[in-house]
Amino acid sequence: MSNIRGFASDNNSGVHPDILKAISEVNEGHVVGYGDDRYTAEAIEKFREVFGPDVEVLFVYNGTGANVTSIQALTRPFNAVICSDLSHIYVDECGAPEKLAGCKLLPVHASDAKLTVENIKQHIHGFGFEHHSQPKMVSITQVTEVGTVYTIDEIKAIADFVHSHGMYLHVDGARISNAAVALGCSFKEMTFDAGVDVLSFGGTKNGLMFGEAVVFANEKLAENVKYIRKQTTQLHSKMRYIAAQFKALLTDDLWKKNASHANKMAQILAEKVSGIPEIEITQKVEANGVFCIVPEKLIKPLQDEYFFYFWDEFRNEVRWMTSFDTTEEDVNGFVELIKKLLK
Amino acid sequence: MSNIRGFASDNNSGVHPDILKAISEVNEGHVVGYGDDRYTAEAIEKFREVFGPDVEVLFVYNGTGANVTSIQALTRPFNAVICSDLSHIYVDECGAPEKLAGCKLLPVHASDAKLTVENIKQHIHGFGFEHHSQPKMVSITQVTEVGTVYTIDEIKAIADFVHSHGMYLHVDGARISNAAVALGCSFKEMTFDAGVDVLSFGGTKNGLMFGEAVVFANEKLAENVKYIRKQTTQLHSKMRYIAAQFKALLTDDLWKKNASHANKMAQILAEKVSGIPEIEITQKVEANGVFCIVPEKLIKPLQDEYFFYFWDEFRNEVRWMTSFDTTEEDVNGFVELIKKLLK
Amino acid sequence: MSNIRGFASDNNSGVHPDILKAISEVNEGHVVGYGDDRYTAEAIEKFREVFGPDVEVLFVYNGTGANVTSIQALTRPFNAVICSDLSHIYVDECGAPEKLAGCKLLPVHASDAKLTVENIKQHIHGFGFEHHSQPKMVSITQVTEVGTVYTIDEIKAIADFVHSHGMYLHVDGARISNAAVALGCSFKEMTFDAGVDVLSFGGTKNGLMFGEAVVFANEKLAENVKYIRKQTTQLHSKMRYIAAQFKALLTDDLWKKNASHANKMAQILAEKVSGIPEIEITQKVEANGVFCIVPEKLIKPLQDEYFFYFWDEFRNEVRWMTSFDTTEEDVNGFVELIKKLLK
Amino acid sequence: MSNIRGFASDNNSGVHPDILKAISEVNEGHVVGYGDDRYTAEAIEKFREVFGPDVEVLFVYNGTGANVTSIQALTRPFNAVICSDLSHIYVDECGAPEKLAGCKLLPVHASDAKLTVENIKQHIHGFGFEHHSQPKMVSITQVTEVGTVYTIDEIKAIADFVHSHGMYLHVDGARISNAAVALGCSFKEMTFDAGVDVLSFGGTKNGLMFGEAVVFANEKLAENVKYIRKQTTQLHSKMRYIAAQFKALLTDDLWKKNASHANKMAQILAEKVSGIPEIEITQKVEANGVFCIVPEKLIKPLQDEYFFYFWDEFRNEVRWMTSFDTTEEDVNGFVELIKKLLK
Repeated sequence: MSNIRGFASDNNSGVHPDILKAISEVNEGHVVGYGDDRYTAEAIEKFREVFGPDVEVLFVYNGTGANVTSIQALTRPFNAVICSDLSHIYVDECGAPEKLAGCKLLPVHASDAKLTVENIKQHIHGFGFEHHSQPKMVSITQVTEVGTVYTIDEIKAIADFVHSHGMYLHVDGARISNAAVALGCSFKEMTFDAGVDVLSFGGTKNGLMFGEAVVFANEKLAENVKYIRKQTTQLHSKMRYIAAQFKALLTDDLWKKNASHANKMAQILAEKVSGIPEIEITQKVEANGVFCIVPEKLIKPLQDEYFFYFWDEFRNEVRWMTSFDTTEEDVNGFVELIKKLLK
Repeated sequence: MSNIRGFASDNNSGVHPDILKAISEVNEGHVVGYGDDRYTAEAIEKFREVFGPDVEVLFVYNGTGANVTSIQALTRPFNAVICSDLSHIYVDECGAPEKLAGCKLLPVHASDAKLTVENIKQHIHGFGFEHHSQPKMVSITQVTEVGTVYTIDEIKAIADFVHSHGMYLHVDGARISNAAVALGCSFKEMTFDAGVDVLSFGGTKNGLMFGEAVVFANEKLAENVKYIRKQTTQLHSKMRYIAAQFKALLTDDLWKKNASHANKMAQILAEKVSGIPEIEITQKVEANGVFCIVPEKLIKPLQDEYFFYFWDEFRNEVRWMTSFDTTEEDVNGFVELIKKLLK
Repeated sequence: MSNIRGFASDNNSGVHPDILKAISEVNEGHVVGYGDDRYTAEAIEKFREVFGPDVEVLFVYNGTGANVTSIQALTRPFNAVICSDLSHIYVDECGAPEKLAGCKLLPVHASDAKLTVENIKQHIHGFGFEHHSQPKMVSITQVTEVGTVYTIDEIKAIADFVHSHGMYLHVDGARISNAAVALGCSFKEMTFDAGVDVLSFGGTKNGLMFGEAVVFANEKLAENVKYIRKQTTQLHSKMRYIAAQFKALLTDDLWKKNASHANKMAQILAEKVSGIPEIEITQKVEANGVFCIVPEKLIKPLQDEYFFYFWDEFRNEVRWMTSFDTTEEDVNGFVELIKKLLK
Repeated sequence: MSNIRGFASDNNSGVHPDILKAISEVNEGHVVGYGDDRYTAEAIEKFREVFGPDVEVLFVYNGTGANVTSIQALTRPFNAVICSDLSHIYVDECGAPEKLAGCKLLPVHASDAKLTVENIKQHIHGFGFEHHSQPKMVSITQVTEVGTVYTIDEIKAIADFVHSHGMYLHVDGARISNAAVALGCSFKEMTFDAGVDVLSFGGTKNGLMFGEAVVFANEKLAENVKYIRKQTTQLHSKMRYIAAQFKALLTDDLWKKNASHANKMAQILAEKVSGIPEIEITQKVEANGVFCIVPEKLIKPLQDEYFFYFWDEFRNEVRWMTSFDTTEEDVNGFVELIKKLLK
């Protein structure tokens, strides 16, 4: 029985062969646990090459772990975090941010899931008023949950605004590689150069087996985070296996090859379906996701052959994600099937 | 540069080759994330073969995650959990149980780290008295943190006592394979047959790369645990890679081979050092750990060649852990070095 | 220096003389602390006369305490509570519900701050989906934060809907006496007869010095609440002083006299300002609050003589609350001042 | 039916008449809620007269509220608080400190319930080691839960030690007035002059109806505490009624009169029973509590006439507390009954 590649999620894909190889290569002998080993040091060094020498890097297991570790590091329970009402931290973490950080999340509605200085402002009040959770962090997702991408200028504008209110800017970068490719910029330009304070750097959706990184702009912001990671259950003992994956991802631009490919597959898919009048693309296709409204009768038969998820069941909006291992044949086969079903 | 095998911890070891192979074998195509895939189903089926058809199994990332998921599943924040004052949940999880479950941990002191009906009783009072955290769970560690092993009868006695007070019995089984080998019994006899309600089943310390399992005696006890796992940040997206490891571990008795070997290495080490008058073994060597007081002058030079940890610095007590990959040459070399240093 | 009565809040008022008298009358000798005394038993008995024999009643300090105790009693941290985005639990408790219950609050926007089956439905999904906080409670405020009142039928409709999804209905009744007066019904008809599961029964805003009550429809719902109240820091030692106040409030319809008077004052105020063309009343005046948009130039001089709060500073909307001790002279003086300032 | 004065607890007593009077005197007109009123300002001013001009003062409802507010202000969830295993925060708050602060409490055993540099040291390790909750606060109770009193020098020694490790010293002063009387010193000498960082200042056990104060040594320590108080459900709306009580307590030495009387009654009681050979006094009688082992046959009949609590049921140790309203007749009657029962 083989596992068909579908368009459900980039985390439905497997592990990139180079990553598997990197894992095997560190599988020798004993090294000290919990990150006090040379592989972890090397991986952190790679991050410093990419993000600048001042960043602090901690590896964790998954995106939720990275996000709640970031939030706890820079907030207290009486704080509020402003985020999109479509964001992963708001919708897809079963309340982990609220429970673990104790904070209130203040949702912002925007159809493209992008925060702006303008739409953030609705929550910028009540400072010093003890009855209100005190806004302390803005969290944006890059690439957003609907496949859109913030420009560097958009991030800078938010960062400046946020800092002018004594707040911090967090980026949930579960798909940050796809964003960097989309913008044609470096990670650093898009994040710390633009004023980001802390970044959840995604690995799993770009070919890793497990592992994300929490990256702080500087040491001071990361002051207590090692305790927070541990108390949040996100400290791995055999750390070399996360470290080796990240080192490989940041070596020879593997991150970029993977993300470029995924983005390209989404572009092709979007292009092909944009010519089908029964299908309405609902979001700009800027990274590796295609969101569109499709005739209801297509959905079940399509899912049977290429699994994917509803985005908004009420209006037959679906989400098609591409991945580092999506092939052009996958896309062609999928589009052919759509056309066949539409006849 | 090669990584010397030391005696620091069984989690300083790498990944068993059969586990790595199992990982590679599932690395094809796409499967649905978060455990809704056939590999996870197969791994759970393996657990049911081993533990009985009624158990509920959830995979998590690590031991702290397994423990706090277990505790949250069967307690409320106004409850208390009784445990050894040497236990991992009490000493080594940076307060994760208190923060995530909201519970009080009630410590019991025993030099062999083993709870008994007798020493538990000190905390069995105040039921119905709202000023006191209500005892609801007893948590034992098998193998204990000092290398001792509960007999089946000891576990049964605790389980009976605990249940007679409307409480639950949790086992932190980070090294449960070593215990099963030590007792020469099945996992089932030692746990659910003996009255255990929930088990943190350890994988990482017995040759896995990452992954532990939370195993409940029955479905009812596990009622809400899938939400708890998610909110605790312990739900992995690419679940097949944890599942494949556990399936391999429970296939062809790999767990037993690994644990038997580790235990045997500890026995050999203990035997050899027991003949050295300057060394005092401080705990029964029942599994894969040797605890002993050694002359201070040995410690640093020994650690330089074979890394290990202090257990009690004040009295020069050290902990030597063996692993599935410890060789008899490692043990011999270590003992020779001790003898050489003592001359 | 005397304290001018303003229109800021019903909690700016003092304590009703009958309540002060009731306090003095229990101030003799020793009684057991924490509610195990005859005064507390008598007060609970009064609640059972009013709400029916099955209710469970616990006294707490304040409204936030009553609300978070209610939420914790009927939810787990992976649950969500649906509420108005103008509600006290959402806006005015500095994140206490999120931190103490660990839950997510799901906001509903409605300009009159009233939930309906229709506007609740947007959050009724994702049951069984572990990535989403599981909706378990709907919380409505009666009287709402903008002075509107749910009819009994509206409450029944919500309760039926909520129960059909295995959820609970909570009422934040900080001003429930004003609502009962407005509807001309008993407390019981409006709450437990209509399907409410738990009620925060307000005292402080209706003439008490301190103290609110948490009232559960039945014993089963209140199973663990005494521990929750204690752990939430809401258990008073000298309980007789809260109990005596509530007994007095529920004796000889003191609650009704106070609330009727406050409501009547709001009616008079609304009637008088409704004739002033420069002022736009923005919400139905159904209880003891008048919300209106006033010319900006009036606000500061008015506040200097009769303190009150902005409701929405951006559009010069203000909130005028009346209280059991507001006099017709206060209202007349206030309206005269408005008219004078408008000239 | 009259309420016999017993020896159960100082919180079984009523409210001192001067306190009731002070409450009545502020019961006029409207004042702004939540502490922004002149009565609260006056009460805080009184505190600054007593404790020095730099202290920050916040009023809360009760002792548990004061303690968990103090802990949250100066710790993060990954911290640990060292305390006596007989302390109120450890034993009598149903896990509120663990749940609300998220911290671990590290218990110290001492038969007189007093911490010392020596017995604290067992927990002073693991700094910087992320697996361990990081010790950040020592909490002592003055008067202790067994009626003993720390000398100023003892407090200074602990404070110096604590500060030398970058930690804070908290005093649970539920009975701090009794301690000040016992030592014949001012509040200031015993607390902030001695190096205390934050104090839970008790009112309820010394004649108040409700209300405790959290007092910080300086503004910096209190930086975020107003949000913490609110989120902890401890902010009262009609604050003037707590403020008026505290102002009265600190005026004309009412606190001292009440505490002196209570202490004296305990001295008399202790003196009288010390002559009874069947009774063994188990703790130094330094404040307003007498702890002793009494013949089992006495306990039930004594309790029937003068209620009190067991301290240690296993050895028939009981606790007799005196209060501001205990009379010499009460003591004499009680002792006579003992003697009669012993015949």
